[in-house]
Amino acid sequence: MPGMLLVIGGAESHDAGDDEILERFVLLAGGADAHLVVIATASLSPADREKEYAEVFHRLGAGRVTPLRLESREDANSDLAVAAIERATGVFFTGGDQLRITTVVGGSRVDSALHARLAEGMILAGTSAGATMMSSTMILGGSLASVSTTSVHTGPGMEFLPSVLIDMHFAERGRLNRLLSAVAMFPHELGLGIDENTAILVEGDVFEVLGRGTVTVIDAGKAIDISCSSAEPDGPIALWGAQLHVLPAGHRFNLTDRAPMRRAEEDHAD
Amino acid sequence: MPGMLLVIGGAESHDAGDDEILERFVLLAGGADAHLVVIATASLSPADREKEYAEVFHRLGAGRVTPLRLESREDANSDLAVAAIERATGVFFTGGDQLRITTVVGGSRVDSALHARLAEGMILAGTSAGATMMSSTMILGGSLASVSTTSVHTGPGMEFLPSVLIDMHFAERGRLNRLLSAVAMFPHELGLGIDENTAILVEGDVFEVLGRGTVTVIDAGKAIDISCSSAEPDGPIALWGAQLHVLPAGHRFNLTDRAPMRRAEEDHAD
Repeated sequence: MPGMLLVIGGAESHDAGDDEILERFVLLAGGADAHLVVIATASLSPADREKEYAEVFHRLGAGRVTPLRLESREDANSDLAVAAIERATGVFFTGGDQLRITTVVGGSRVDSALHARLAEGMILAGTSAGATMMSSTMILGGSLASVSTTSVHTGPGMEFLPSVLIDMHFAERGRLNRLLSAVAMFPHELGLGIDENTAILVEGDVFEVLGRGTVTVIDAGKAIDISCSSAEPDGPIALWGAQLHVLPAGHRFNLTDRAPMRRAEEDHAD
Repeated sequence: MPGMLLVIGGAESHDAGDDEILERFVLLAGGADAHLVVIATASLSPADREKEYAEVFHRLGAGRVTPLRLESREDANSDLAVAAIERATGVFFTGGDQLRITTVVGGSRVDSALHARLAEGMILAGTSAGATMMSSTMILGGSLASVSTTSVHTGPGMEFLPSVLIDMHFAERGRLNRLLSAVAMFPHELGLGIDENTAILVEGDVFEVLGRGTVTVIDAGKAIDISCSSAEPDGPIALWGAQLHVLPAGHRFNLTDRAPMRRAEEDHAD
């Protein structure tokens, strides 16, 4: 995939001088040459979100910003919507309810156009629900109560980023147990807990951390033992020996190797 | 230390039939032969807490329950208080503010008497603040915001359980980042995040998990790289390759080996 994904943990700053995540999005989409599309389908107040992001993207120097209002599957299958995506150098999904995105956009012509544009080098960004929906399996909800098979609900995501489970507002909403529950059941998926005003920029199989908080990576594939039973759905899960990484801005992680990258490795390419 | 520690993550159930943690405390302290002492120094409403615990301990069959009101260092150095501890087979510290416990009881004759009774085989229990204070270094407070050197404040605890950092209400209050911040700075301490209505029973260098939730063990001693700088106090911390265990009821963990124990190892002793 030659395109890039910018996966934001929610509540990214829009303040001038503190908006490095959105600034990077505008820059990577082409700056003054960018054709940005804002999709606020997840939100209950799409007009407010469209206005808000158009303002900040214009201030950050984006050449063109188009709000694309997709409220029905008919919208998501329209020639107009597909044409907007085909012209886009960057698409931004706002926060809200991730199920709104899958039910309105999933399997539509816009969905296909997004995948096609990504393959051609576009950047796809999303915050909160717009971030969660990017993985092949997404977290729909859960409880903080315990690590158990019923503590987290998952469903198929939009499949832009395979092999990970993304949780957002991670530190702020104390979501460790629901992410742990998910990766304990599905250790082939790498758990990525992204704090607010924090993002990962994915290019190929490497991501870089941007923003103020940290990204918590939980690799239950390293576990020596996991016990959970679907026969006892409320029963707690035991997870022995998972690996955990905390990555602040500037750190890079290889999703294929499932390991943080040292500067030396990065320099090795030169 | 022949005695036992029962370290409860707060909000343990007092309901008949669902009070296994407190039931275990009463049983281990001697049941009908138990002389229990309740110390509610951490609480702003000590009379309420004393009454509440006396009721539940009596219902659970405790022979004798004595509330020991320690409101000043003078109280904690009194002959009466020391005599109460010397007779006790089990002592219970309620929740509240852990600094109240250290400032009133720390270094007093009661403090010495508690350590002496533990060495003789007593059981010492505490919930919430009464649990946090048991380690040699305790968590005083912190923020959820990020993993950084200023995200957690620690201070010396009452030194009943060395080599660990205890955090309580762990899942319910989303305290991963503050515990991660602490163990990243002090990886020789094992991080123990104890959920509500969940406890560890420590005997020698082994603990067993009791209750409804899980205990999250974070071992930053396994980390391959940690970077944090006291020169940049608000800067985020990077932590690569920490080990994480999630342990529900019945699981045992060896604090010296820093590893969960398999049934086979336990049986090995027979």
